[in-house]
Amino acid sequence: MDIAIVGASGYAGGDLIRLLLTHSQANLVCATSRKLAGTPVTKDHIHLKNLIDLDYTNPSVDKIDADFAFLAVPHTAAMQYALRLKERGIKTVDLSADYRLPQTIYEKTYGVKHTAYFKAPYGIPELHRKDIRGADFVANPGCFPTGATLAAAPVADLAAQIIYDSKSGVSGAGDSVSETTHYPNVDENIAPYKITAHRHLPEMKQEAEFLGSTAKIYFTPHLLPAIRGIITTAHILFKKPVTLEEVQKRYESFYKNEPFVRLQTAKLGGVRGSNFCDINFELEADGTRLVAVSAIDNLVKGASGQAVQNMNIMCGFAETDGLRMPGMFP
Amino acid sequence: MDIAIVGASGYAGGDLIRLLLTHSQANLVCATSRKLAGTPVTKDHIHLKNLIDLDYTNPSVDKIDADFAFLAVPHTAAMQYALRLKERGIKTVDLSADYRLPQTIYEKTYGVKHTAYFKAPYGIPELHRKDIRGADFVANPGCFPTGATLAAAPVADLAAQIIYDSKSGVSGAGDSVSETTHYPNVDENIAPYKITAHRHLPEMKQEAEFLGSTAKIYFTPHLLPAIRGIITTAHILFKKPVTLEEVQKRYESFYKNEPFVRLQTAKLGGVRGSNFCDINFELEADGTRLVAVSAIDNLVKGASGQAVQNMNIMCGFAETDGLRMPGMFP
Amino acid sequence: MDIAIVGASGYAGGDLIRLLLTHSQANLVCATSRKLAGTPVTKDHIHLKNLIDLDYTNPSVDKIDADFAFLAVPHTAAMQYALRLKERGIKTVDLSADYRLPQTIYEKTYGVKHTAYFKAPYGIPELHRKDIRGADFVANPGCFPTGATLAAAPVADLAAQIIYDSKSGVSGAGDSVSETTHYPNVDENIAPYKITAHRHLPEMKQEAEFLGSTAKIYFTPHLLPAIRGIITTAHILFKKPVTLEEVQKRYESFYKNEPFVRLQTAKLGGVRGSNFCDINFELEADGTRLVAVSAIDNLVKGASGQAVQNMNIMCGFAETDGLRMPGMFP
Amino acid sequence: MDIAIVGASGYAGGDLIRLLLTHSQANLVCATSRKLAGTPVTKDHIHLKNLIDLDYTNPSVDKIDADFAFLAVPHTAAMQYALRLKERGIKTVDLSADYRLPQTIYEKTYGVKHTAYFKAPYGIPELHRKDIRGADFVANPGCFPTGATLAAAPVADLAAQIIYDSKSGVSGAGDSVSETTHYPNVDENIAPYKITAHRHLPEMKQEAEFLGSTAKIYFTPHLLPAIRGIITTAHILFKKPVTLEEVQKRYESFYKNEPFVRLQTAKLGGVRGSNFCDINFELEADGTRLVAVSAIDNLVKGASGQAVQNMNIMCGFAETDGLRMPGMFP
Repeated sequence: MDIAIVGASGYAGGDLIRLLLTHSQANLVCATSRKLAGTPVTKDHIHLKNLIDLDYTNPSVDKIDADFAFLAVPHTAAMQYALRLKERGIKTVDLSADYRLPQTIYEKTYGVKHTAYFKAPYGIPELHRKDIRGADFVANPGCFPTGATLAAAPVADLAAQIIYDSKSGVSGAGDSVSETTHYPNVDENIAPYKITAHRHLPEMKQEAEFLGSTAKIYFTPHLLPAIRGIITTAHILFKKPVTLEEVQKRYESFYKNEPFVRLQTAKLGGVRGSNFCDINFELEADGTRLVAVSAIDNLVKGASGQAVQNMNIMCGFAETDGLRMPGMFP
Repeated sequence: MDIAIVGASGYAGGDLIRLLLTHSQANLVCATSRKLAGTPVTKDHIHLKNLIDLDYTNPSVDKIDADFAFLAVPHTAAMQYALRLKERGIKTVDLSADYRLPQTIYEKTYGVKHTAYFKAPYGIPELHRKDIRGADFVANPGCFPTGATLAAAPVADLAAQIIYDSKSGVSGAGDSVSETTHYPNVDENIAPYKITAHRHLPEMKQEAEFLGSTAKIYFTPHLLPAIRGIITTAHILFKKPVTLEEVQKRYESFYKNEPFVRLQTAKLGGVRGSNFCDINFELEADGTRLVAVSAIDNLVKGASGQAVQNMNIMCGFAETDGLRMPGMFP
Repeated sequence: MDIAIVGASGYAGGDLIRLLLTHSQANLVCATSRKLAGTPVTKDHIHLKNLIDLDYTNPSVDKIDADFAFLAVPHTAAMQYALRLKERGIKTVDLSADYRLPQTIYEKTYGVKHTAYFKAPYGIPELHRKDIRGADFVANPGCFPTGATLAAAPVADLAAQIIYDSKSGVSGAGDSVSETTHYPNVDENIAPYKITAHRHLPEMKQEAEFLGSTAKIYFTPHLLPAIRGIITTAHILFKKPVTLEEVQKRYESFYKNEPFVRLQTAKLGGVRGSNFCDINFELEADGTRLVAVSAIDNLVKGASGQAVQNMNIMCGFAETDGLRMPGMFP
Repeated sequence: MDIAIVGASGYAGGDLIRLLLTHSQANLVCATSRKLAGTPVTKDHIHLKNLIDLDYTNPSVDKIDADFAFLAVPHTAAMQYALRLKERGIKTVDLSADYRLPQTIYEKTYGVKHTAYFKAPYGIPELHRKDIRGADFVANPGCFPTGATLAAAPVADLAAQIIYDSKSGVSGAGDSVSETTHYPNVDENIAPYKITAHRHLPEMKQEAEFLGSTAKIYFTPHLLPAIRGIITTAHILFKKPVTLEEVQKRYESFYKNEPFVRLQTAKLGGVRGSNFCDINFELEADGTRLVAVSAIDNLVKGASGQAVQNMNIMCGFAETDGLRMPGMFP
C-alpha cells in the first residue's frame, strides 16, 4: 500500500517513518515538507540514513499520489487537506486536532474557524475500534488525552472528580526552539504549564462522557526533563468508596484483549519507542481515591504509533503490524 | 554560639555546614559520624574543602559540648539524643521525624515504639513562629509537608479535598545507594512511589487541621530526574466556588511579612540552594479548583535551611542569618 | 534456528531479546538466569511483556538445547561455558571479555587465570568479517573498543599517537547498584574514571596493530549523564601532516560497503537503540590532528547488536536481519 | 564601593549580582539592560527576589555613576565602554573577549576591527596576580581557557602537545534560544562543536606561552547535558617521560597558596556555584602522558566569580570577599 505523509519533517513525521519501515504492507512513496522540499528525508531524520532513500516534496493536495495518507501538519493546516483527500478516496489518519472535537468546541478551544468540518471517529482503538474499522478518515487523539483516558477508563463512570496530573517529555513541544525548551529552563525542574486550561482538556472530557462518566474532569500538564514519554497520574475521586477487587476486575476485563495496554508498573523505560500503554494503580485505604498511573511514549502511542494502529484497523491489517518493536529499556 | 551537628555526614549534614559557614553567630565545634569518625569533614563533603578544618567525632550524648545541636540522624536514632540534650539545656532542632507527630500517630506511621517522647513545636515558622520562639527543642518538618503545606495554607480551610502531587529530586532519598536511585532507573522517567501512603502524609493532615481545614488530604510523591528540589502541585478542590480576588488576597495577606515565601512562578532554579519557597497559583475558570504550585529546595527549606531558620527564631537571631544566599539560577 | 541466551537478565540480555524478536530466523528457546530461574523473562524486562512468553531457567551447560548460544555473563563466567558449547557444536558469540585478547594479555589485564583458553575471531565485522564468516565461536568486542576503533581505523596507520576520550552512558555499568551510578553522583557531572588504565585499552591496542598502526594508544573514559550511548572523541596526532582530501577518501573507501557505519554527524540520538555507528571528523587547519567522533549505542553496536551481526555472518543470514530498526530520534 | 554592572541581565550578570550580595564592600547601584530598562532586576533574575530592589537602567557610558564597573556585554559591545570608563577613572573588569588577546590576534579570531584597543592584564589571578594588583582595567578570561590553563599550568613547560578535551554545561551558551540548546538536542547526548577551531583556543595558547611552554595546543569542546560547570580533561603528552613525584611536587607547589584551587577529585558538584577550581591528575604508567582533570563552575570561576576575585585584587580587598560560599553538593 502506497503511503504519503503530509508534514513528514518534525518529530511525529520522523517516528511515523521509523515505524512504517517495519510494516509489512506499507510503502512510503511521498513525504512532504514545505521547508525541506528537494532535500533527502535523512537531512533532518539522521537516524533513518541508509534505511530510506526518498526526498521531501511539496505537492498540492491533488497531486498526492497514494492509497493512504497521514496528516502530520499542525491544526488548521490539516483541514486544508482533509476534505479533498476524503473526496479523492484516499484513506487518512489526521494527527492534528482538527477533527477530534465537535465543531463548536473545536472553534472555541483553538480560537479559529473550522473551514472544512466533518465528523470523524476519535482514534483511541481501545474505546472506538468499531467506528474506526469502517472509517476512511480517523482523527488521531492528542498525546495527553490518550494516556489520561486509558488510565481512568475502566472506572471513569464511578468517579465524581478526576484530576489528570501529567508529566510530558520535551519532544511533545516539537522541534521548534523556544524559551520553554531552552535546556537550562527545562533541566533540574518540572514546570507546570497551562495549569487549568490546556487545549487537550476537551478531548478528555469528551472521552469521559463517552465512557458514561459524569465526573468533573481537571487537567494539569508539566514539562518533564526528558525527551520522550508521558506519565499521567490520574487521581480518581469516587462518588462512593470502592473495593480493590472491583477495581482490579474492571481493569483486567477492560483491557484483557488489548494488544497495546499492559497492566504493569508504568515506567517510561518500559514503553519508550513502542506503542504500549502501561498502567498500574493503587487504591486509597478507605476506597475514596484511586491513583491510576499510565505511561506512554508521546510520539508513539501518543501520536505516530496510534496513527499506524488506526491505519491497521481501517485497512484490515494485523493491528500490531509495524508496531511489534518492544520499548527500549533501559 | 558553639554548634554540634549529630549526623553530619550525609546530604542534610553537608548542607547544614554549608549554611552555617555564612552565619554570623554560629561556630561549628562538633560534627559527629559513626562511620567517618577520625576523618576530616571534607572527606565526603568535598565542596567544603579549604572552608572548614574539622574532623568527624563520635562522642556519647553526654560528651557533646555545645550550646546548640542539630540532630541530622535517621528517625529512631534521634530519640536517643533528644531527651538528654534537653535535660542538659542544649537547645536542639531535630531534623528527623521523631518529634513531628503525636506519639500514637508516630508509632503507627513508622511502625516503632517511641522510647523518649515529649511534645515539641512543629517547625514551619510561617505557621508556628510563636511556639518556636520560646522553645528549646523544635521538630523540623519533612520536606514534602513543608512545600505542600505552604502551597495550600492560605486557602486550606475552604477546601473539601486537597491532592498534593509532588515531584522530588533524588537527593531526598539520601546518599545511600539503591535500585531506586540507580541512574538508569531515574533518568528519562518520573516514578510515583508510595502512591497513597507515604509517611509524610500524617504531617500534612496535622497541619491542615491546624489551619482549620476539614479537607480530606491526599498525597502522591514522584521521583524527579533532578538532584535537588521539590515541586508540589496542590490540587485544591473547594467546598464551593471561590473568586480569584479572594484567593489572591488570602495568599498576599498570609505571606506578606514572610522573609522566605515569595509569590512568583515556582521554578526549582529560583530556589536551588536557598531557603525560599516560591508559590504561584491558577484558579479553574469556574472557581472549583485552585492549583497552587510551590517550589523549595528539599535540602534547604525542606531540611537544613529551615532548621537554621528555626535556630534563629529560637535564639533570637535575625531570622535570615546564614540564609541570605539567593538560589542558583540557572 | 533455536537460540539460547546464557545470562539473559541484565541490560545486554534484555537488548539481545529485543533485537531477536525482529529476527526472521531466530527462535529464542532458552534464557538462563541464576537469580531469576523460574520467573518470567518479563519480570525484569518489563518492556518485553506481551511480546515473549518464556521463563528463565538455569540449566547446566550440557542441558542447553539450542543451535546457537549467546554468552551474556561476566568475564570468567563465560569461560565455563565456552569450550563445552564448542565441543557440542553449538555456535556461540561471547559478549564477555574472555576471548578477546591473547591469553597472557587477558590474564594480566583481568588479574585472573584463563582456564579454558582458545583463539577466537574478534568480532568487529568491519575489520574481521572474513574470520567471523567461518567461525563457530566469536569474541564480541568491548563497547569502548568498538566505537574507538571504528572512529580511527581508516587513518590509524598514519598516526603517531591516538587519544580516545570517550563518554559513555550509565547503562554501560550494568544494572548493579553502586556509588558510581547513584543518581546524584552522575547527574550534572561527567566523571572521568580509570583515567589511564581501563581494561578495554588492550583491545584498542590490538586492533590498532591489526590495522598496521604503530601509534601509541591512550584511552580515558568518562561517565556521561545519559542512559545509553558512547561518544568517542578520537584525537589522532599524525606522524606528518595530512590533507583533508586524503582523510575523506580513506573514510569513504573504508566504510563504503558497510551496512552499519554511516559518515554523518555523530549524535547519540541518531544511533539510540540501533546497530549503527555514526562517524564525523574534522582536520586541524595545519593537518597535524584529526578529531574523529563516533557515536554508538553501547548496548547495541557496543554489545547485543554487534553480537547479532556476528551471528548473522557466522550463520550466513542477511547481515542486517534483526537489526533493521532505525535509531530513536529524538 | 558603588558598583555598576553593564549588561546585568543574562546568566553572567545574574551570577555577578548573586555573589556581590554577599560582598562586604560592594554596593550595587547600577544594573544596565537595553531590553529590560525600567523593569526590576528580579524580572528575569527570579532567584534574587526579596534580596535586591533595583531597576534596570540604560545610561550612556558617561552617565554611569559608580566606583567600579563590570562589563558583562558581548564582545565588540565592551569596547564601546572600556576606554571611556578608563578615562573617567572607573576601575573595570571586562568579562567579554575584547581585551584578552593582542589586537591582531583578536581581530583575526573574532573577524572584527578593534576600535578602542589598549593592553590589559589577563585576569587569571593564579598566573597574573601581580599585574592585576596595580591595574585599573582587567580582561576577565574565557571560561574554557580558565579551567584548561589551570589544569595544565604546573607542567605545561614539559609538554610537547596538550589536548584540552572540555565538557561544558549549557549555561555557557547564554540564555538565548537556539537549535543547539533545544532540550531534545542536548539531553542524552554530548555533542562536540567547533572541534578544532574554537575562539578560546588563542587564549589557551597565549597562557601556555606565558608559562614557558612550547607545546602544540589543541582544544575540542563538548556540550554536556548539564546546566553549569566545565570539566576539562587535559591530555598532556610530555617531551620525555616524567615521574609522579615530580608532577605531584609541581602541582602542590604551584597551587599551595591559592585560595581557590584545590587538589582533589574534580567533580562539578564540588564546585557548583562556587569560585573553586578542583584539579586531580593521573600519570600514564610509562610517564608519557598526564591526564589532568579540572572542574570549575563556568559562570563563577569561569566568569563572574573570577571577575569578583579580580576586583578584590585590584581594590585591595580580601581576595575571597564575596566568594566564601562553598559549592553546592550534591
